[in-house]
Amino acid sequence: MRKGFASDNNSGVHPAIFKAMTNANQGHVRGYGDDQYTGKAIAVFRDTFGPDTEVFFVFNGTGANILGLSSVTHSFNSVICAETAHIEEDECGAPEKFTGCKLLPVKPVLGKLTPELVEHHLKGFDFEHHSQPKVISISQVTEMGTVYQPKEIRALADLAHSHNMYLHMDGARIANAAVSLNMGFKAITKDCGVDILSFGGTKNGMMMGEAVVFFNPELTNHTKYLRKQSMQLFSKMRFIGAQFQAYFEDDLWKESASHSNKMAQYLKEEVSKIPQIEITHPVEANGVFARIPKEIIEPLQEHFFFYVWNEKESEVRWMTTFDTTETEIREFVLLIKTLLKNN
Amino acid sequence: MRKGFASDNNSGVHPAIFKAMTNANQGHVRGYGDDQYTGKAIAVFRDTFGPDTEVFFVFNGTGANILGLSSVTHSFNSVICAETAHIEEDECGAPEKFTGCKLLPVKPVLGKLTPELVEHHLKGFDFEHHSQPKVISISQVTEMGTVYQPKEIRALADLAHSHNMYLHMDGARIANAAVSLNMGFKAITKDCGVDILSFGGTKNGMMMGEAVVFFNPELTNHTKYLRKQSMQLFSKMRFIGAQFQAYFEDDLWKESASHSNKMAQYLKEEVSKIPQIEITHPVEANGVFARIPKEIIEPLQEHFFFYVWNEKESEVRWMTTFDTTETEIREFVLLIKTLLKNN
Amino acid sequence: MRKGFASDNNSGVHPAIFKAMTNANQGHVRGYGDDQYTGKAIAVFRDTFGPDTEVFFVFNGTGANILGLSSVTHSFNSVICAETAHIEEDECGAPEKFTGCKLLPVKPVLGKLTPELVEHHLKGFDFEHHSQPKVISISQVTEMGTVYQPKEIRALADLAHSHNMYLHMDGARIANAAVSLNMGFKAITKDCGVDILSFGGTKNGMMMGEAVVFFNPELTNHTKYLRKQSMQLFSKMRFIGAQFQAYFEDDLWKESASHSNKMAQYLKEEVSKIPQIEITHPVEANGVFARIPKEIIEPLQEHFFFYVWNEKESEVRWMTTFDTTETEIREFVLLIKTLLKNN
Amino acid sequence: MRKGFASDNNSGVHPAIFKAMTNANQGHVRGYGDDQYTGKAIAVFRDTFGPDTEVFFVFNGTGANILGLSSVTHSFNSVICAETAHIEEDECGAPEKFTGCKLLPVKPVLGKLTPELVEHHLKGFDFEHHSQPKVISISQVTEMGTVYQPKEIRALADLAHSHNMYLHMDGARIANAAVSLNMGFKAITKDCGVDILSFGGTKNGMMMGEAVVFFNPELTNHTKYLRKQSMQLFSKMRFIGAQFQAYFEDDLWKESASHSNKMAQYLKEEVSKIPQIEITHPVEANGVFARIPKEIIEPLQEHFFFYVWNEKESEVRWMTTFDTTETEIREFVLLIKTLLKNN
Repeated sequence: MRKGFASDNNSGVHPAIFKAMTNANQGHVRGYGDDQYTGKAIAVFRDTFGPDTEVFFVFNGTGANILGLSSVTHSFNSVICAETAHIEEDECGAPEKFTGCKLLPVKPVLGKLTPELVEHHLKGFDFEHHSQPKVISISQVTEMGTVYQPKEIRALADLAHSHNMYLHMDGARIANAAVSLNMGFKAITKDCGVDILSFGGTKNGMMMGEAVVFFNPELTNHTKYLRKQSMQLFSKMRFIGAQFQAYFEDDLWKESASHSNKMAQYLKEEVSKIPQIEITHPVEANGVFARIPKEIIEPLQEHFFFYVWNEKESEVRWMTTFDTTETEIREFVLLIKTLLKNN
Repeated sequence: MRKGFASDNNSGVHPAIFKAMTNANQGHVRGYGDDQYTGKAIAVFRDTFGPDTEVFFVFNGTGANILGLSSVTHSFNSVICAETAHIEEDECGAPEKFTGCKLLPVKPVLGKLTPELVEHHLKGFDFEHHSQPKVISISQVTEMGTVYQPKEIRALADLAHSHNMYLHMDGARIANAAVSLNMGFKAITKDCGVDILSFGGTKNGMMMGEAVVFFNPELTNHTKYLRKQSMQLFSKMRFIGAQFQAYFEDDLWKESASHSNKMAQYLKEEVSKIPQIEITHPVEANGVFARIPKEIIEPLQEHFFFYVWNEKESEVRWMTTFDTTETEIREFVLLIKTLLKNN
Repeated sequence: MRKGFASDNNSGVHPAIFKAMTNANQGHVRGYGDDQYTGKAIAVFRDTFGPDTEVFFVFNGTGANILGLSSVTHSFNSVICAETAHIEEDECGAPEKFTGCKLLPVKPVLGKLTPELVEHHLKGFDFEHHSQPKVISISQVTEMGTVYQPKEIRALADLAHSHNMYLHMDGARIANAAVSLNMGFKAITKDCGVDILSFGGTKNGMMMGEAVVFFNPELTNHTKYLRKQSMQLFSKMRFIGAQFQAYFEDDLWKESASHSNKMAQYLKEEVSKIPQIEITHPVEANGVFARIPKEIIEPLQEHFFFYVWNEKESEVRWMTTFDTTETEIREFVLLIKTLLKNN
Repeated sequence: MRKGFASDNNSGVHPAIFKAMTNANQGHVRGYGDDQYTGKAIAVFRDTFGPDTEVFFVFNGTGANILGLSSVTHSFNSVICAETAHIEEDECGAPEKFTGCKLLPVKPVLGKLTPELVEHHLKGFDFEHHSQPKVISISQVTEMGTVYQPKEIRALADLAHSHNMYLHMDGARIANAAVSLNMGFKAITKDCGVDILSFGGTKNGMMMGEAVVFFNPELTNHTKYLRKQSMQLFSKMRFIGAQFQAYFEDDLWKESASHSNKMAQYLKEEVSKIPQIEITHPVEANGVFARIPKEIIEPLQEHFFFYVWNEKESEVRWMTTFDTTETEIREFVLLIKTLLKNN
């Protein structure tokens, strides 16, 4: 299939990461994470985030979010999130099913929560009729392609902590955020008060595998059992371990995320020149949201697949990836122009 | 690490399967299974089991079992299984947590259930105080390395169906069973009345990926939602699809399973010659269970890792895999003899 | 304790209902509902709602809502409700915990949902990433003391049914609504397209006991098991049956609800005369919501207990009951006036 | 209905308890347990079990068991119990559904667990593949009508505690046990090492209402939320509070339980004289288990209802209650004799 702009998980695996998997395919190692590849990957995370970091590898992003949330909640808790959040919109109710918690969706501004938006839900503490708020969950990059500034994260963390709550970050695109902010992983997570991080790799060139990162080891007393019980324990774990090692080596993550972010900027610039197209959100990472004439959507999709984000508004989402090329973008923009002319 | 006899998932990935994954790593394809690799893999399953087969790929064996069971049960149902079953012993309560069902363990004979053993639990139907029996679940190969004969499966299926129940088969090692019985997959599952099959690949040379196979499409009305909600939907699904294609191509599964079964027979024969060692179960697939002198366990494990199955009985489990070699077995047996002599 | 205006369940049991319980306390009867008192109560419900009505008695309102919802949903479904709904605000997450479903709260207008407010959530059907909408749940009387008009209910029912969904009504105060609308129970539920009704008795003079009423018997295939599994099956069920018999006899429910509604009107009229007090919602049943000067709240509560509804807004909620007297209201209003003068 | 021997919850409410409920039906009190009746009932429990006892009232026995177990477990835990236990056999899977835990049934001896019987399951600690054992649950009186001796309880408690586990007692018939042992409640629970007690009242003359009693207050950090979320929080709680006050007053519980135990002894003695009848378990409380000729079961049930316990064995269960009379027993025995003669 021709590369499109549908999703960063429509891409394959970065060659360097694939090579690491190939190299790991030697002989026998113990299963379930008790192997040197997993061990080294955990060490890399501790180098990155500090020595008392606890890391648990899982299969996918939904698994990461659920493992993170279930480690710090009881069934009578609630989790506050944006109504656009992946945990609210795109996980088919996995959080409620597995944790038993109530999700409290908030209409975000530019995809982001703020203390003002969240505060409304910080009530009913100690009142047995009311689900007890325990987590604020944010996505970095947000589902609208915007990026939280460190001080915005800190403000939410402080609010959470002042209510004996935790701040969870769904970092499915954390690399794109780090590049966008030109900061390191630790600086935009732990240093801002994040307690639990779903650290994504799949959307930035890995095959599968996400890491649930806890900055306070006391939160992980039950995590290993919950990982198994949530069907997220990989027997041949070395193949996640090897990927993460390669992902961090020579800052491969940065190179890949920089590239996709740059491609998104390029795409944005090019389509901004077309008067019939309106960019609907700030382009801060690797997603471009645009309102485009309804009649060109289908013909365009035939050549470059992408998703309609909001049908009523004729709003589409274009994602760039580590392997998007300038040529593809030029061809894409050219096709848009041709289609518009024909209409 | 030197290859040992710990588990068939301590091995890596069969080279032919790895090659298929490499080949699938080209360009972009749609995510979540809407790609040609997954499509072809599903077609292969339909060729194997019949055109009205429904197949759902998941990450691992626990995920497969839970998806199969949750597709056909309500929370007030019960599932009858051997007390040695993986779902009872080795999934940290995932079945109860995700399905809400009660598991009714039965002491098996040689790892197997029989109608006589199960019948005790077929009661309380229509009685609201009692969990409603809905599934009999068996493992093929069993956790004791034994293999159900087709007529044994048929008897359990008939019993299940006569009570409006289903027969589920945990086929984590279904290939080893097929080879052992010298029959095809369909002949030992669908043709024997199995309703839902967890079809395993990981223990026979795949990286990850299992298939939940339903022989009655009406059972799958909710399965796609349950797969997502149980965190088992893989975004880059093509990498499971490609593996299964390779697994079936030129009967690779048969070659691999035949080899591991043969190695288990060889190992059994060799250790049977040692008077201090007693084989504790019939060796019908790729597992050898043996009672060995306690004092040689640790020194032996230092060179070839394996698990103690029953500490009190000094019983150990040795698993062979697609890449076990005769040389390794000879070295292993030699070491046993040496250790025994030294004692 | 002096009677206050805190809640309609701060009242005791209506004498006629208590008498029926006393009369039922004779000899032995079979447990769990297989007795003549329960049988007769079910018959009364069928007289009221039609012969193919299915009725399940439970202990309390939360139990009724959860049993109704769990009977018609799977864990991957969602339930749309007002953000003020009891199931969203006051059940400590019981719906999510027991059903696994996602609740989708909507900001209501005057406590009510409308098709326009709900429509936003009617999306993602057949899309496995998205919780599948299955129920619209409304409260009649609403938590804001307002009452849905029959055509408003019908519009929501039609919307639900056009999407293969159900309309659930939390009728904790259904008697007050019927009296307010001057209509019968059937006319404002089944005849408007309601599918599942939580029929409340406790807030209108019963001791405990609610009925889950299904207008389509096919929805109840699993309900008896779910009732037991949700810990809502009463062994000495006769004592709920006897209460409901008395509740319907000579339209006791109507007499009681009429009285509390009338008392609420009287209270509203009296406090409306006080310039410092503002009624914040239409008073359509037995609840009066008012904004009152902050400084009189506590001294007032010392004599007549009630709850602050919205602290920031200085809004309070006053509930009247079947045993509220005009004298009490006059004393209460007099005290308000006195307190205001003293300030 | 003529009184039979079906179940101790086929009886009604003891007059003294009913009177207390009537007396509590005065005026308004705060809901959900914040009232003087509940307060006094809690005080009585603290007088009985010690000042640091925590007590939570719930609707029924299943609710009590689930609230007790869920307060001290996580979803990945397991609960060891007799295969005849109410939580295993008669709660339609409520424990699994609500707690997520695995139940590990053990074939009991005379309805009782012993350390030897339990030990088999005390394994897999710290092993993430295995449900983590956390509770041993016993029933006192057992479901077979036998009574644990204090030292038997102590042995199980010691075993549990030595593995960092808890001992839960399902005391649905705790009063009958106390009378049988001629000891106080505390002496046969807390003093024997029980950690959590489901204290039943319904089967000994109450209308409804059980108490979950925790002897270590630290176990109850989440209990109030779990009670609400499990739908077990009674709005008009005073009517449970009043019952328990009356239940303890002048040792009413003892009088009632003594009577039913005595009646069971009388029944046992009388039927023991009939050669065709064989008593199958020691009669230690208020249940008599007997093997009787199959052909008299149905004609006997027509006059005195009771349940067949084991159809194959022609074993029946006869329960006596606080209001069983010697006359009834004589009539019953006479009828047996008549029926036997006619056959």
